[in-house]
Amino acid sequence: MNLGHVARLLSGFVLFFTLPLAIPLGVSVSEGSQTATTVPFAGSMAVGLTIAALLWFAGRKSRKDFFRKEGLAMVGLAWFLAAAIAAMPFVWSGAIPSVVDAYFEAVSGLTTTGATVLGGSNAKVESLPQSVLLWRAMLQWMGGMGIILVFVILLPGVGVTGSRLLSTEQVGLSDKTVRPRMAGQARRLFTLYIGLTSIAVGCYWVAGLPVFDAVCHSLTTLATGGFSTNSLSIGGYENLAVELVAVVFMFIGGCNFLLILGVLARGGRASSSTLVQRTEFRVYLGLTVLVTLGVTLSLWFSGQTLTGQAPHDYTSFGRCLRDAVFQTVSLLTGTGYCNANYQQWPAIALLLVFMCMLIGGCTGSTAGGFKVLRVVICAKLASHALRSFVRPRMVEKLKVAEDVIPDRVVSAVLGLMVLWIGLIAAGTLVLGMDPRLDLVSAFTASVSMMGCIGPAFGQVSPVAEGVVGSVDLGPHGGYGDLYPGAKMFMSLQMVLGRLEILAPLALLTPKFWKD
Amino acid sequence: MNLGHVARLLSGFVLFFTLPLAIPLGVSVSEGSQTATTVPFAGSMAVGLTIAALLWFAGRKSRKDFFRKEGLAMVGLAWFLAAAIAAMPFVWSGAIPSVVDAYFEAVSGLTTTGATVLGGSNAKVESLPQSVLLWRAMLQWMGGMGIILVFVILLPGVGVTGSRLLSTEQVGLSDKTVRPRMAGQARRLFTLYIGLTSIAVGCYWVAGLPVFDAVCHSLTTLATGGFSTNSLSIGGYENLAVELVAVVFMFIGGCNFLLILGVLARGGRASSSTLVQRTEFRVYLGLTVLVTLGVTLSLWFSGQTLTGQAPHDYTSFGRCLRDAVFQTVSLLTGTGYCNANYQQWPAIALLLVFMCMLIGGCTGSTAGGFKVLRVVICAKLASHALRSFVRPRMVEKLKVAEDVIPDRVVSAVLGLMVLWIGLIAAGTLVLGMDPRLDLVSAFTASVSMMGCIGPAFGQVSPVAEGVVGSVDLGPHGGYGDLYPGAKMFMSLQMVLGRLEILAPLALLTPKFWKD
Repeated sequence: MNLGHVARLLSGFVLFFTLPLAIPLGVSVSEGSQTATTVPFAGSMAVGLTIAALLWFAGRKSRKDFFRKEGLAMVGLAWFLAAAIAAMPFVWSGAIPSVVDAYFEAVSGLTTTGATVLGGSNAKVESLPQSVLLWRAMLQWMGGMGIILVFVILLPGVGVTGSRLLSTEQVGLSDKTVRPRMAGQARRLFTLYIGLTSIAVGCYWVAGLPVFDAVCHSLTTLATGGFSTNSLSIGGYENLAVELVAVVFMFIGGCNFLLILGVLARGGRASSSTLVQRTEFRVYLGLTVLVTLGVTLSLWFSGQTLTGQAPHDYTSFGRCLRDAVFQTVSLLTGTGYCNANYQQWPAIALLLVFMCMLIGGCTGSTAGGFKVLRVVICAKLASHALRSFVRPRMVEKLKVAEDVIPDRVVSAVLGLMVLWIGLIAAGTLVLGMDPRLDLVSAFTASVSMMGCIGPAFGQVSPVAEGVVGSVDLGPHGGYGDLYPGAKMFMSLQMVLGRLEILAPLALLTPKFWKD
Repeated sequence: MNLGHVARLLSGFVLFFTLPLAIPLGVSVSEGSQTATTVPFAGSMAVGLTIAALLWFAGRKSRKDFFRKEGLAMVGLAWFLAAAIAAMPFVWSGAIPSVVDAYFEAVSGLTTTGATVLGGSNAKVESLPQSVLLWRAMLQWMGGMGIILVFVILLPGVGVTGSRLLSTEQVGLSDKTVRPRMAGQARRLFTLYIGLTSIAVGCYWVAGLPVFDAVCHSLTTLATGGFSTNSLSIGGYENLAVELVAVVFMFIGGCNFLLILGVLARGGRASSSTLVQRTEFRVYLGLTVLVTLGVTLSLWFSGQTLTGQAPHDYTSFGRCLRDAVFQTVSLLTGTGYCNANYQQWPAIALLLVFMCMLIGGCTGSTAGGFKVLRVVICAKLASHALRSFVRPRMVEKLKVAEDVIPDRVVSAVLGLMVLWIGLIAAGTLVLGMDPRLDLVSAFTASVSMMGCIGPAFGQVSPVAEGVVGSVDLGPHGGYGDLYPGAKMFMSLQMVLGRLEILAPLALLTPKFWKD
């Protein structure tokens, strides 16, 4: 293990997350609230730059060879470290006084989860200074860009084989012949991401949001993050046009960005990789349509009984459709915005959107969850198992869009699924120790963290008498009132979920650090 | 496909389930309630014999060759057909007037699930004649024996390779050289099963149960079935000794019966198969101990707050341990007895026992669930995925107890897992359409059916106003008040779960019936 090189890589990463502190710093200065936020932002920036410099210094003499393990170590550590720097202004400015809370919020931002500690015993979103709100939104935007770049730049043979690309989004050895190509790819992705964000700002503004809100929401929409400047999320604006803009850009955020690039470049060359990605996109679109339809009908059929209890009038088909499409896209992409407190919805509607939370968006996107392509591979495997049960001597390969999925990839996907389930179970147990939480909130919160989504189903049913306080982990609630231990574990879950488990988990195996 | 041969095989199977009708018929005669139950039992027996004769007649000319597909078809159809005959006395005697309900009860019996439609709008268990209660318990006993025999007699090379045996408990071609050995094996298993049941009858009786109750509970304990003659299940007796007997025999029911045979035959020959089975047993035992401990502590810590609400006084450590061990073993083995209404337990305790429901007992037992060995294989796969992520060029085989698990088996296990998850999701959606059910009850009921367990967590939280009626799917409740469609789907789930999905599902593929 070339620790020096890891340090140098991390130094660049830290710089990437530190320099943008200049923007909220500028906003803070223009706000004129020097003591409250200017010093914290300037100070955090100074600390970040110092750390970057130290890391660079530590690694200045290392060989330039770039090996797989160094890349893994860097990626595994980067999110934890970046969150520590990102959390500094929150604590320093007093916006989020508790260190654990601030770290949770920063991790939630950088992993594009969007779970917040604000509200409850912490300050409300609306009471925070604009510079802090902007920094919060920027974290998600950078986290979204970061995850795409990491999985593209550190990937072996980007864009060559979809299956290899997507197996475990393996970070690996980048050899010199592909490096220039990858730099170009990264530049194009960056441009695309900035371009889409700018368009989103315009659309939000035209739809009626104030400029500041439009900027903040664009940053968190494209990143499928979900932080909002309104404590009722997008729903707080009660503006259909704004919701439509959000739906469109959340959906785009859940698409494979390489596929978007390919299509924009007229994507005529149907390499096997884009074929796989197209299949994934079709399933993703189909899922969105089907679930939206199911939720709409479910809301509409129970419209009469829900009257008075549900947040909106579900006897109107239009309203059902509006809420259904918004929540479906928001939860499928792991954004976590809400336009209605879905907790009053009938069980079947909740189940449908909960399945969306598990599935997630496309690979190569900013979305979370298990990813559509992996679900497709699992479904193919199930049908394969059935067919080879009927004909044990059958020799047939697993295929997605005529592309054979190698056994290695299948077993990686399944190993990942098992780890995923295990971590969801572990999180449920940790959260379940909180006597204020019931089964549903503990379980859905755990899923929400692993899938980088944000809200959970916090329908805390009447808990045992004698237990004081209740916690709402739903779309209008927050995680601030949970115990610190739970929040630390959830921070870990978010990073594991964001980096698809293997890279950060590998750091915990002693073998990894040997030789 | 040799349909004639399938018919002849089924004829034997029908006979196996029809002849024992003579026992409740005898009880009925001795009860002296001729009109109510004697005629129905006699009539059902006549119908069953007729069907067996017709099937035999249809297949009398078929070749005697025994192929894999015929075995599969027979197994896939047997449970559905047997349940139809078994349900007849329920409807005919008026004990369970609705055909759907009676079929559900019979399937639940033959699959050793133990979910009941009794109570609620149906008659209470206690009000049924003894002959019907005995028949109900016998169904579970026969179902338990049936599943062991099916997986042993129709398995290729029984006892040779544990891994092959347990891959998907594949039913397959029995060739002539192994048939005599298998017949001997089957006879030994049958003797063991009867022997254990007899001992259980004695123990229950000594512990204080009336003879009739002792017999009925022995039949359903060994089969890890869970039907009781008391509507409060074993807990209704409030007898510690009875509960201990139940725990011991449920635990035995969840062990691999081949392993028990091996140990009884002094099991010195540590063939690779028994090594795998021993590993499985150790994990099974370890799980039982750990979960019991966790639940005990969880109950004890919240003893104070639970006072007055929980069914028992959980400030007493002994009571915590008693309820914890009972429910852990009952749900891990998929029996479904209860000694306490666990629905008031704290979330963490519920989560622990819920995980038991998912995991289930050992392969080759009467227990349900996904099976311990498969969970072990999945865990090995996850750690394998992590290690090969760290060292991509690693060449290492998946092993359980020094026995290499072939890729074919791993992918079969995982295909099964995906199907399992898919069917649980489908069941949750079907049940979720019932506006009276919430997320937890729909989900846990679906898991309960797939795992052949019985009760669910029916904590129906305050549902939407305007929805009339509530349903308790918990240990003291029943499934009788669900909609017929839901009950039909659940019957299907139980059979799929009992036969480990592949065999019955294969019947639905058109390819299966061709050539």
